[in-house]
Amino acid sequence: MNAGARVGVCVPMGWTASGVAAGIKPDGRPDLCLVATDRPAAAAGVFTRNLVRAAPVVISSRHLDAARGFRGVIVSSGNANAATGTQGVDTAQAMCSAAAECLDCTGNEILIAQTGLIGIQLDRDVAVAGVRWAAESLGPERGQEAAQAMLTTDTVHKIAVETFDQSGVQVTVGGMAKGAAMLAPSMATMLAVVTTDAAVETAVLKRVLRSAMQESFHSVLVDGCTSTNDTVFLLANGAAETEMIDSESHPSYPGLARAVEGVCTSLARQMACDAEGATKLLEVRVTGAASDSDARLAARSVAGSVLVKCSIAGADAYWGRVLADTGASGANFDPRDCTIRYGGIVVSRGGIAAEHDVEAVAEHMRGREIVIGIDLGAGAGAATVWGSDLTHAYVDENMGTS
Amino acid sequence: MNAGARVGVCVPMGWTASGVAAGIKPDGRPDLCLVATDRPAAAAGVFTRNLVRAAPVVISSRHLDAARGFRGVIVSSGNANAATGTQGVDTAQAMCSAAAECLDCTGNEILIAQTGLIGIQLDRDVAVAGVRWAAESLGPERGQEAAQAMLTTDTVHKIAVETFDQSGVQVTVGGMAKGAAMLAPSMATMLAVVTTDAAVETAVLKRVLRSAMQESFHSVLVDGCTSTNDTVFLLANGAAETEMIDSESHPSYPGLARAVEGVCTSLARQMACDAEGATKLLEVRVTGAASDSDARLAARSVAGSVLVKCSIAGADAYWGRVLADTGASGANFDPRDCTIRYGGIVVSRGGIAAEHDVEAVAEHMRGREIVIGIDLGAGAGAATVWGSDLTHAYVDENMGTS
Repeated sequence: MNAGARVGVCVPMGWTASGVAAGIKPDGRPDLCLVATDRPAAAAGVFTRNLVRAAPVVISSRHLDAARGFRGVIVSSGNANAATGTQGVDTAQAMCSAAAECLDCTGNEILIAQTGLIGIQLDRDVAVAGVRWAAESLGPERGQEAAQAMLTTDTVHKIAVETFDQSGVQVTVGGMAKGAAMLAPSMATMLAVVTTDAAVETAVLKRVLRSAMQESFHSVLVDGCTSTNDTVFLLANGAAETEMIDSESHPSYPGLARAVEGVCTSLARQMACDAEGATKLLEVRVTGAASDSDARLAARSVAGSVLVKCSIAGADAYWGRVLADTGASGANFDPRDCTIRYGGIVVSRGGIAAEHDVEAVAEHMRGREIVIGIDLGAGAGAATVWGSDLTHAYVDENMGTS
Repeated sequence: MNAGARVGVCVPMGWTASGVAAGIKPDGRPDLCLVATDRPAAAAGVFTRNLVRAAPVVISSRHLDAARGFRGVIVSSGNANAATGTQGVDTAQAMCSAAAECLDCTGNEILIAQTGLIGIQLDRDVAVAGVRWAAESLGPERGQEAAQAMLTTDTVHKIAVETFDQSGVQVTVGGMAKGAAMLAPSMATMLAVVTTDAAVETAVLKRVLRSAMQESFHSVLVDGCTSTNDTVFLLANGAAETEMIDSESHPSYPGLARAVEGVCTSLARQMACDAEGATKLLEVRVTGAASDSDARLAARSVAGSVLVKCSIAGADAYWGRVLADTGASGANFDPRDCTIRYGGIVVSRGGIAAEHDVEAVAEHMRGREIVIGIDLGAGAGAATVWGSDLTHAYVDENMGTS
């Protein structure tokens, strides 16, 4: 990818970005990015459900309630600014004020997300200076630098783009995200910023984001831990100069919804692939459930099972564990009606072993993407959840904070 | 410990046991044990809530309903006899019939528990021959052999004994258990057999077992996986020739309940200490919760957090993760009223860092038993959950079935 190209959040018109090494991370890696729009954008946000809400979550919720048009989004990494009390809230507020000064708007028109260690005060002067530097560095070709500056233990940056047609005009949705550890439904430490040049009313934008969450970020499960900082922002600046999408019955609503869901799903899969220490992507597809929510329960139970995750690391098609975790998930089904597949090959039917091509399954298990299919034989409910294997590297990354 | 001594389930009068290498485990280690009583015993059982119920769970539930006096308990390891369909149920039934023939009773008067790999048929001839051999080997000095024959990936056998006084006569409760991986509330693969020479009515015995479960086996959490085979049996044969404990208002009820709970709690802690790959015991004590159930939610969330478990392995007192997992647990509290202690030393108060003696905390973290205290400041509810650290060895043990 050409570093000078418009990528990620900068592909939609009117959007610029930057990423700098502000000095929040002690090792000098990039740790602060800014995304800005040349005109006010409507915005929607989804936040962690953790009772412990980090300072940026407190501030951004407040700003989404107070303002109608937004000019920028700050994302910093290395320090979560969580469990930092009123001092932490003041720091996040000062960062927004600094960005507002540079972008010629009010502090309320800036959103902020942060990720990193919990319980340590963020140096306010360092953070504010970083925001100013990022504002001076804004450019349409800096989407990749921005995507890199939001990473923590991620090994690669994550960006995605989709387009749709609105009355002959191409409208674009672009996004960037960070994931790594602590990914789970109800999100956990993952941050994402999604931009579009569509014109969308705030209420409609909220609806689009909410419906995109379930099949994307809420379907990624790495370690079941829910963070204090999870945030997804969706902003629409109308720079494509197409008609305002002002209701769900607007003819362009489905196109917008599909494009946003496409970007979010791509970012979510990239997160699962890059989970801490992961060597394989695990996709658990549950079908035949009594309901979609039963299917989600079963898929999460299997994708989140550390025993299943270890067996994937060992390329061992141990379907007995899959059946046991499905049985413990809370989903309602009769094991005698259950069918389990690895890579599409039936390994268990009716709750017992099924004759199968052992070498074909072994070959699937040696691959990079493992697909476990579970048909519960109880109805038409379905759900897919992405996870990863569990390896020594995950343990190593989480043995210490330094 | 003297191998010839009466230990574990054989300490109460009238009880004998044995452990043999029947050939279920391919490596020739002991894999089948029998516990027998010289007179019929009342029995109570608690089983997994997994929808996938192993054959021994199906058979034992049936026998508990059908019979009133029990003569023996078979426990085998190496093959869970789960997801084995009607053939597996027939095998478990044949094992009970073989034991009944040797002990001169009916098959309904035998209970059975099994643990090991899921989804593989158990060789019926091998299993039945093993039962006959175990019956021929019964002796009062073989409690330790029995405790060893039930182990899978456990590194040490687990036994416990408590006594209480009933009108000047010493009454005894003895137990043995296997744990290792897949330990979690709603039990997971753990098996325990508890015997007593008290005389107890079945309804009272059920009550005693149920109330002992919560503070013991249900308070151990290793990897959150619930198994197909979890079983705890409590049997009372009356060999101490004391008065029948026939209600909760009987003067000896509290003594019996305390002794059973003491044995179960000791076995549960031994399980947490010996969890797969564990090097440290983690005790999470939650106080000040709005209710006991809120306290349990919080304690389980922290003890079950793989991020906390990795930090314990790394001797890193990262209280931010503890706060975040408490906030995500579903327990109701205000982080500003929360206090977190490591080894009794306050490290966080009011949701932010507290000044503390860093070296004293570091010394506690280097120990073998780590105690995390969390006061939610929301009421009088309390709960304690035991877990363990997460290490490379856990990953290694679960990468393959062979």
